[in-house]
Amino acid sequence: MREVRVDLPENGYDILIGEDLEAEIVSFFAGAGFSSQVLVFSDSNVGKVHGEKFAELLRRAGKRPTVHLVPAGEGSKSLAEAERAYTRAIEVGLDRKSAIVALGGGVVGDLAGFVAATYMRGVPFVQIPTSLLAQVDSSVGGKVAVNHRLGKNLIGAFYQPKRVFINLGCLSTLPRRELSTGLGEVVKYGVIYDGAFFSYLEEHAEAVLAMQLPAMEHIVLRSCEIKAEVVTQDEKEAGLRAILNFGHTMGHAIEKETRYVRYNHGEAVAVGMMGAAYLSRELGLVGDAEVAQLRGLLEKFSLPTQAEGCTEDGMYAAIFHDKKAVDGKVKWILMESVGHARVASDVPEAAVRKCMRMIVSD
Amino acid sequence: MREVRVDLPENGYDILIGEDLEAEIVSFFAGAGFSSQVLVFSDSNVGKVHGEKFAELLRRAGKRPTVHLVPAGEGSKSLAEAERAYTRAIEVGLDRKSAIVALGGGVVGDLAGFVAATYMRGVPFVQIPTSLLAQVDSSVGGKVAVNHRLGKNLIGAFYQPKRVFINLGCLSTLPRRELSTGLGEVVKYGVIYDGAFFSYLEEHAEAVLAMQLPAMEHIVLRSCEIKAEVVTQDEKEAGLRAILNFGHTMGHAIEKETRYVRYNHGEAVAVGMMGAAYLSRELGLVGDAEVAQLRGLLEKFSLPTQAEGCTEDGMYAAIFHDKKAVDGKVKWILMESVGHARVASDVPEAAVRKCMRMIVSD
Repeated sequence: MREVRVDLPENGYDILIGEDLEAEIVSFFAGAGFSSQVLVFSDSNVGKVHGEKFAELLRRAGKRPTVHLVPAGEGSKSLAEAERAYTRAIEVGLDRKSAIVALGGGVVGDLAGFVAATYMRGVPFVQIPTSLLAQVDSSVGGKVAVNHRLGKNLIGAFYQPKRVFINLGCLSTLPRRELSTGLGEVVKYGVIYDGAFFSYLEEHAEAVLAMQLPAMEHIVLRSCEIKAEVVTQDEKEAGLRAILNFGHTMGHAIEKETRYVRYNHGEAVAVGMMGAAYLSRELGLVGDAEVAQLRGLLEKFSLPTQAEGCTEDGMYAAIFHDKKAVDGKVKWILMESVGHARVASDVPEAAVRKCMRMIVSD
Repeated sequence: MREVRVDLPENGYDILIGEDLEAEIVSFFAGAGFSSQVLVFSDSNVGKVHGEKFAELLRRAGKRPTVHLVPAGEGSKSLAEAERAYTRAIEVGLDRKSAIVALGGGVVGDLAGFVAATYMRGVPFVQIPTSLLAQVDSSVGGKVAVNHRLGKNLIGAFYQPKRVFINLGCLSTLPRRELSTGLGEVVKYGVIYDGAFFSYLEEHAEAVLAMQLPAMEHIVLRSCEIKAEVVTQDEKEAGLRAILNFGHTMGHAIEKETRYVRYNHGEAVAVGMMGAAYLSRELGLVGDAEVAQLRGLLEKFSLPTQAEGCTEDGMYAAIFHDKKAVDGKVKWILMESVGHARVASDVPEAAVRKCMRMIVSD
């Protein structure tokens, strides 16, 4: 088992990573001082496989779990689904010291976290991410949210979990496309923060794609370490944390343009990273070699580097609706090398549009 | 003008109290670094009187205000009303550095604060409370919430404003019953924290009821100081802050039993304080004199000391739905003297029921 500390001043916590964390889960819940009732969020897919087994662990810890299933898919990140969850929480008698647990991927984590952040002004929250994307990204750092019909993640909070349990065993049932999705964010950590990690991914691509345990443990551990370091320095995204959005400005525009159907999050981010790399080259920050290196690794991981079904104009309009835009200005995250990122405002429209054309395929 | 500092480690702020704070409001908004768009929440009553005038101040500060009116009354503290507000915020182009302002009483402050806490994971929030209750209680301390149909304030957050502007001039149009409502909380501060302030209220009751400015300034200032001191020591109600709930356990039960129609909040809290005083006497903490002193002051302020339309059984059942109940145990706030409160668990059911009978009138 490996541990990563997210060392925040008021609400720090540990991330535990291992192949089987049952004993750790039981002893944590037995000793954490939570009330007896526990509400476990899961979705119709993950809940079927892991729900009852996890509930049994909670019973061994002396708790009274209720498994609350939501439909699988992004549609569950809604205020309506949150309201159903509040009702369930009240009905089963959750009090302000009762824990809410997210057992699932990013959708379950974001929804459960939003409910935990707002039920009775905040109750203890525990993350058990089961997809690679959730393990390396959404379960760490405290961003929780639901969607508004006019935009994703527009309603949310910064709300840190009490602990994150990453069971690598869950990955064995992960579909190949979901693996690639998670790898999009893993590649991002290499680009923005750690050139050596990027090289590791290049050298161990086959082991990763075969989901060999030592490789998976390393990439999950290193991703969590990097995210933890960034979040520790800037919990609420006043500055540095913005680098985690590398590839996300154009990525979100692609998701929006294709109505969140054609590409999943990691795929859209992969294309967005290519756009950001082109933009970095356009502004003289990197050369052809770095761009090629990024494209090469994304292709190894079966991630797209161009998007179909988008237009330059549509994407350009969409970026101003991004949450990072302030007073009509878009903040760009650019690469300075494979391993370092920086934030830039005032990037010329012509350069942005040129790079958008390069990632749009007919 | 008077100032009170809420000295929190990460998100401290100032409360400004005065008869006319226009210049302070203009210079604050001009210099605070917020984006241009400002969303001003108000209700159909307050908005008519103060909305346009306040918007003009914001324009003088170089901002582009949108006044967002909600129906007057508790019904607006709903997730549905929050959702309408998110939509409005997105439509007018609020970004993550745009301010949300609450211009109104407690309902407007709680709703606007909840939206500010959750829109784009939190935007700057400013309180301009216009009722006495909001000025001395709900605008200070960062509790924001909306109601769930199964209970009040069940969906919310701790979210501190950037500044609170208390314009005492607003009180001149306050109906008499609303004045009494606010005085319920003012009396509470004397009982739980400051015997000298309680004496001041006894001695200056006529000046307060006539809403004479020096008396109003003093009671608002002292109430804010006390609340600020308590909140500074315990922002998220892990311990001490619970004393602010003196009178609220039975008060909430009375509001619930009478379906939030017969009594307003301050009236229900007044009766609840009598219940808590009886309970304190029952447990040997105070004698007849303290109970009589509290009753005397509440009566001077035209506040009820008994509630109609409640039953002992109904109230007793209701207290377990209070947010302060943990694992089925109710935390009671008791008075040790006029000026000091304490928290107690494990109060015998028989004593609680006896005191409930004393505050129920036929």
